Amino acid sequence: MRVAGPALPSGARLLVVDPGEAAAAGLRSYDRVRVRLGGRSAAALLAAVGGIVGPGEAAASLELAEALGLRGGEEVEVTLAGVPPSYGAIRRKMRGESLSPDEIRSVVEDVAGYSLGELEVAAFLLAQEMRGMTPEEVRALTAAMVEVGGRIDFGRPVYEKHSIGGVPGNKVSLLVVPIVASAGVFIPKTSSRAITSPSGTADTMEVLAPVEFSPEEFREVALRAGGAIVWNGGLRLSPVSEVFARVGRRLEIDPPSQMMASILSEKLAVGTHGMVLDIPVGRGAKVETLAEAESLASRFLELGRAFGVRIQCAVTYGGQPVGHAVGPALEAREALEALSGRGPASLTEKSTGLAGMLLELAGAAPRGGGKAAAEAALESGRAERKLREIVDAQGGDPSVGPEDVPVGEKSTEVRSTADGYVTRVYNSAVAAVARAAGAPEEKGAGVLLHAKQGYKVRRGDVLFEIYAERESRLTEALALASELRPVMVEGMLLRRIPDYA
Amino acid sequence: MRVAGPALPSGARLLVVDPGEAAAAGLRSYDRVRVRLGGRSAAALLAAVGGIVGPGEAAASLELAEALGLRGGEEVEVTLAGVPPSYGAIRRKMRGESLSPDEIRSVVEDVAGYSLGELEVAAFLLAQEMRGMTPEEVRALTAAMVEVGGRIDFGRPVYEKHSIGGVPGNKVSLLVVPIVASAGVFIPKTSSRAITSPSGTADTMEVLAPVEFSPEEFREVALRAGGAIVWNGGLRLSPVSEVFARVGRRLEIDPPSQMMASILSEKLAVGTHGMVLDIPVGRGAKVETLAEAESLASRFLELGRAFGVRIQCAVTYGGQPVGHAVGPALEAREALEALSGRGPASLTEKSTGLAGMLLELAGAAPRGGGKAAAEAALESGRAERKLREIVDAQGGDPSVGPEDVPVGEKSTEVRSTADGYVTRVYNSAVAAVARAAGAPEEKGAGVLLHAKQGYKVRRGDVLFEIYAERESRLTEALALASELRPVMVEGMLLRRIPDYA
Repeated sequence: MRVAGPALPSGARLLVVDPGEAAAAGLRSYDRVRVRLGGRSAAALLAAVGGIVGPGEAAASLELAEALGLRGGEEVEVTLAGVPPSYGAIRRKMRGESLSPDEIRSVVEDVAGYSLGELEVAAFLLAQEMRGMTPEEVRALTAAMVEVGGRIDFGRPVYEKHSIGGVPGNKVSLLVVPIVASAGVFIPKTSSRAITSPSGTADTMEVLAPVEFSPEEFREVALRAGGAIVWNGGLRLSPVSEVFARVGRRLEIDPPSQMMASILSEKLAVGTHGMVLDIPVGRGAKVETLAEAESLASRFLELGRAFGVRIQCAVTYGGQPVGHAVGPALEAREALEALSGRGPASLTEKSTGLAGMLLELAGAAPRGGGKAAAEAALESGRAERKLREIVDAQGGDPSVGPEDVPVGEKSTEVRSTADGYVTRVYNSAVAAVARAAGAPEEKGAGVLLHAKQGYKVRRGDVLFEIYAERESRLTEALALASELRPVMVEGMLLRRIPDYA
Repeated sequence: MRVAGPALPSGARLLVVDPGEAAAAGLRSYDRVRVRLGGRSAAALLAAVGGIVGPGEAAASLELAEALGLRGGEEVEVTLAGVPPSYGAIRRKMRGESLSPDEIRSVVEDVAGYSLGELEVAAFLLAQEMRGMTPEEVRALTAAMVEVGGRIDFGRPVYEKHSIGGVPGNKVSLLVVPIVASAGVFIPKTSSRAITSPSGTADTMEVLAPVEFSPEEFREVALRAGGAIVWNGGLRLSPVSEVFARVGRRLEIDPPSQMMASILSEKLAVGTHGMVLDIPVGRGAKVETLAEAESLASRFLELGRAFGVRIQCAVTYGGQPVGHAVGPALEAREALEALSGRGPASLTEKSTGLAGMLLELAGAAPRGGGKAAAEAALESGRAERKLREIVDAQGGDPSVGPEDVPVGEKSTEVRSTADGYVTRVYNSAVAAVARAAGAPEEKGAGVLLHAKQGYKVRRGDVLFEIYAERESRLTEALALASELRPVMVEGMLLRRIPDYA
């Protein structure tokens, strides 16, 4: 086929051909194909879409054009790509067998090189989910992911805080990073955007400052302020990790083996020396029981040791949202309030606890004295000043106050229909309502909880507020809230049967 | 977004948007999205490709345009589609739980309605592969697939022959169908194109006559000739089955539960009354041991009983190719030779055996007398005349002889390098070489075996020939043959170490 120029911007290695042409060659949309030009070849995904190129022609995406050095006009050969040998390893894992480090490396390399597509990645993740992996396999997976990814050398010891996630409103990094950095411990934090939650740490930080940097910019910014909070995806250090995350998100699975390897390889890529890992536990969190949390923690510790990273795990309460605010702007505002001493206890307690562990791990506080040191950094205003330094280094407004953060202009209150105690605040329901309201894309959208578990409320008291940037989303979120009831009050009438007065 | 007209021909429900626009909305290529127009909505796959539509615009594929009644110019809302509730059932199956008939039906309906995409289908197939399914689940899956598919009512009892496949050169249907039809047993056979093999029955038949018909055409053709051999995909009776097959092919898995449900639902769609199921067994076949074959057969019988279909299973030898020819034209030629009494024994034996079972099942031959009746139909020339009637009804040339079938003009011989016995003919290697030569797309390509297991050969004897339509494919196939050695002769030097004289 002749390559029609110019290349199409896409985001994947894509080859667009005429549907008739594809059918004649026995090819279908989303088939994995091999595109050959002279002695070079690249794997690509086929898109059979009409009206773009003529018969006998193919259009390449920028990514494919780059891989083959296409400029348009070349004759390329297109064949259905067989699965690479590494898929044999995935099949063995499907049967429950253990893989050798070489087999695991070949899988990771083929994901990086587009020879294994999303379906094969799905098979790999599902096999991990259903069969599990040995510690040796997780080590090999971690090592392989580090190998195919990029690295940043900060030239000084790096400390990190990471949460395995699953609990809405977890804006603790916006407190932990400045607390730790204010004590001179270097913490250039890479963080994710929301995957299934209403706000990832990167989304929340972005309310205060840009978070997308090249590795060079990240290095400079972090060294200048002694800390940073940036978006990991923007650094493009681990494209493989992003593929795993994207497919896992689509399948709604996060196998522990892959999660451990993805987290640790990301931290190794920035030269992490020590890390505190937050494992929230509770109903509706990723980890539901203490026993599971302990098992995960000990596996993480062992994995860290194998790579010379000192890890401490903090098992925290994850049965309801952290603090009161859920959604990027609402969370950023709550974090600023907490840094100025006006935050909810659940947030400052958790943040100073984790920060204290890091201070001890880095030798910046005596054993047992970390939490007090963290509290002092918070109460003295040092942590707040450090956050402003970081915001400034990342290009945000260092003078921003909680009241300056714009939250959604449309809002509504949901009130209790009964007197009683709040028996449950559902993580998944709060997250779903905040997302329905527009979070994380619409930064001002989210949920502000007025009551949490154990609170005593009277009929007519506000249980929570929903914020949105658009009326239509507010309506949608409110409808979902009536259905899901994120905040449950004992004694509340759940249903009336039959449904008339 | 505004829909840019006209719709693009594609083959899937596709929405093409500008990559910048997609990124801003947090969407990526291959995300599943929900497209809303007024009160209607449809699931679609997102393609973020530049240069096709402007910002704020989206182009719909024909399939999507049809689903929503789009003509261009409409304003549609595009959101990331959450997974439908049926995905919860797939997750339960991943954990090894059994699914209720309702859960299974919801999965099948959502695959049919595009609410479950290829990744979720992959998860469903992989869960079946790794966890298995109970007989009740397979029944529910079969019933659901029949429900969402189309049907053909022939108005008379239908008999079928089906092979679970996995053995190259299995052109027996081209003999079984005319033998059975010549005895007045109605056999409108639906068959597949090659999935991973060098030639499916539909590919082989297509050398002699068209195989792609609408359900109405198929009905008319089959009733006129008393039998037919058509391509199942062309009938579009079961789009869901095609999705399962496509994803399974990509993942190189064929879980027994899905295979049984797909086969039986296809047969139920044409009103099958009785069926002979060929289960080839042997090294390199789909089923490797007799015990496995017997277990599969008994599960099939039970499934058939639940739907009132009389099934008889024939466990056949599948350790090497059937007959000598592999590849569409070579196989069609060999079938014509066998119908005129000049075929290899392995082919006529297997064909008359299966045909005999069908004749008995349909009451057209006394118990124990089927094989003799089938042999008589073959030897008398009745079967050959019936095939010519069928070829004629399907629009082919009824006077075609074996010598008229054009095979690849490029060919080469591979000779034995030793005296000895042929110890093994490898199914997978023969298939791979035939595919490398161009089969099934290039009809004349394939492999012609001169020696099979147990043959005594002398050094210099031809072991097999490779046929191709193009020199480049011939070279490729020959290189692969040197590597894979499809025909193994005892005493052959396999490797010389070190590798110099």
